[in-house]
Amino acid sequence: MIGVFDSGIGGLTVLKDLSAQLPGYDMLYLGDTARAPYGSKSADTVSRFTLENVELLLRQDVRLVVLACHTAAGVAMKRLQSTFTVPIFDTVAPAVDSAVAHSRSLRIGVMADRTTVDCGVFPTMILEARPEAKVFLAACPLLVPLTEEGWVKNPLTRMIVKKYLHPLKVRRIDTLILGNPHYTLLSSVIQTKIGRRVRIVDSAACVSTRLRRYLTAHPDLDRTLTKSGRIRLVFTDLTPQIEKAVEHILAPSLPLESSADIRQLPPT
Amino acid sequence: MIGVFDSGIGGLTVLKDLSAQLPGYDMLYLGDTARAPYGSKSADTVSRFTLENVELLLRQDVRLVVLACHTAAGVAMKRLQSTFTVPIFDTVAPAVDSAVAHSRSLRIGVMADRTTVDCGVFPTMILEARPEAKVFLAACPLLVPLTEEGWVKNPLTRMIVKKYLHPLKVRRIDTLILGNPHYTLLSSVIQTKIGRRVRIVDSAACVSTRLRRYLTAHPDLDRTLTKSGRIRLVFTDLTPQIEKAVEHILAPSLPLESSADIRQLPPT
Repeated sequence: MIGVFDSGIGGLTVLKDLSAQLPGYDMLYLGDTARAPYGSKSADTVSRFTLENVELLLRQDVRLVVLACHTAAGVAMKRLQSTFTVPIFDTVAPAVDSAVAHSRSLRIGVMADRTTVDCGVFPTMILEARPEAKVFLAACPLLVPLTEEGWVKNPLTRMIVKKYLHPLKVRRIDTLILGNPHYTLLSSVIQTKIGRRVRIVDSAACVSTRLRRYLTAHPDLDRTLTKSGRIRLVFTDLTPQIEKAVEHILAPSLPLESSADIRQLPPT
Repeated sequence: MIGVFDSGIGGLTVLKDLSAQLPGYDMLYLGDTARAPYGSKSADTVSRFTLENVELLLRQDVRLVVLACHTAAGVAMKRLQSTFTVPIFDTVAPAVDSAVAHSRSLRIGVMADRTTVDCGVFPTMILEARPEAKVFLAACPLLVPLTEEGWVKNPLTRMIVKKYLHPLKVRRIDTLILGNPHYTLLSSVIQTKIGRRVRIVDSAACVSTRLRRYLTAHPDLDRTLTKSGRIRLVFTDLTPQIEKAVEHILAPSLPLESSADIRQLPPT
């Protein structure tokens, strides 16, 4: 199986894109909703939680992990790769590659939560690829609670997006990376506020493309992945709001198991 | 010692009021910031986390616990009282008593997070006291992230407060309970938006008064509480934002231990 991990429900946008680009592949999604959000927590704590969750996935016959959580990728990727032997894909690297490949001015903006901004993963990777690039970061901690509240089309959300984007806009970026899978749900508002001439890089889509290519190049691994089209969703905590969000993001495109029996993880 | 528990930093407003009304008493504050917020999590999960945290406090020579987290009180109070023998004070009961004692029309509004609203603790307790009362609830999940973002005086916060209060305003309430310790930080905005004729009941102040009276009536227990004026703050996760919030809410009124050595709790 392909395992997909996120701190909460935002990674469902990544799962949705993966299931569209890799139809038929069995996938297990784990959302650590009991301890979400990660984006305002310390690097140590996020790293510890991420290791625990990836370990849970690997106990379930998962042969390849997609980290749909940018915060987790930003602070724990190296530790994960030195701890586990399965291939681990994150959403940061493919987004950075896409951004530097297409940006003309190399003035690149990144929207992310505070911990992802503070850990510096985006500037580090962008400058590794293109040392002459200029990177501008916007910490946007309210966007996750706003989308989880369902206020995607609310005028107040548009005003908050505008406020967050203002410092990037005045820097005349030509590329904007959405550094959190939740932001995919706000991409049309973000496009409007940042302007049509700025290219938006959606990490969710980038990681799917990379994974598809990787599996074509690694048929031995590909053969070990089961393909009965089964998508399982597991959350460490389940509420009516989460069920509604799952339905909003995924349905009716994905067959879902009953959410009543998905809390199968042992307590931490 | 007096133990004070909250899911995060909001309960610091309760701690501040306690230390003003009970000067000299030693207090240990525990904020479960690694797993906060609780307000959007299921009752089962909040209840489990709360029991774990109260147990941690009791291992530290705590003789009396103040639950500064309304969510925890709403879903776990009965279980706590049947599990532990120390007196446990919550912020819900004193707020309800103050509301029903002063409300003329008995049209009472409550602002709280979603889990507190859903668990029904406020209407249950208000109607137990005064069956003829009318209770109107507003779930306000964005107010905690807004205050934690430091947007207390931001015009967008005022607009969001107005939007949340609108359904209570049209019901012509005469009393409004702030059902989350974070909301204390927004009380002047809330007073402006709901109107001056509505009496605001701040749970933080209510629990301190009740505790002070209880200790006067129970001198034997009072004697077991140490009074060297020491306030200790322990968080399960620590970030610069939390340190800033502690300083904003408490300083310079309280002497604080260095925050570098406060992560002394064993991992969950």
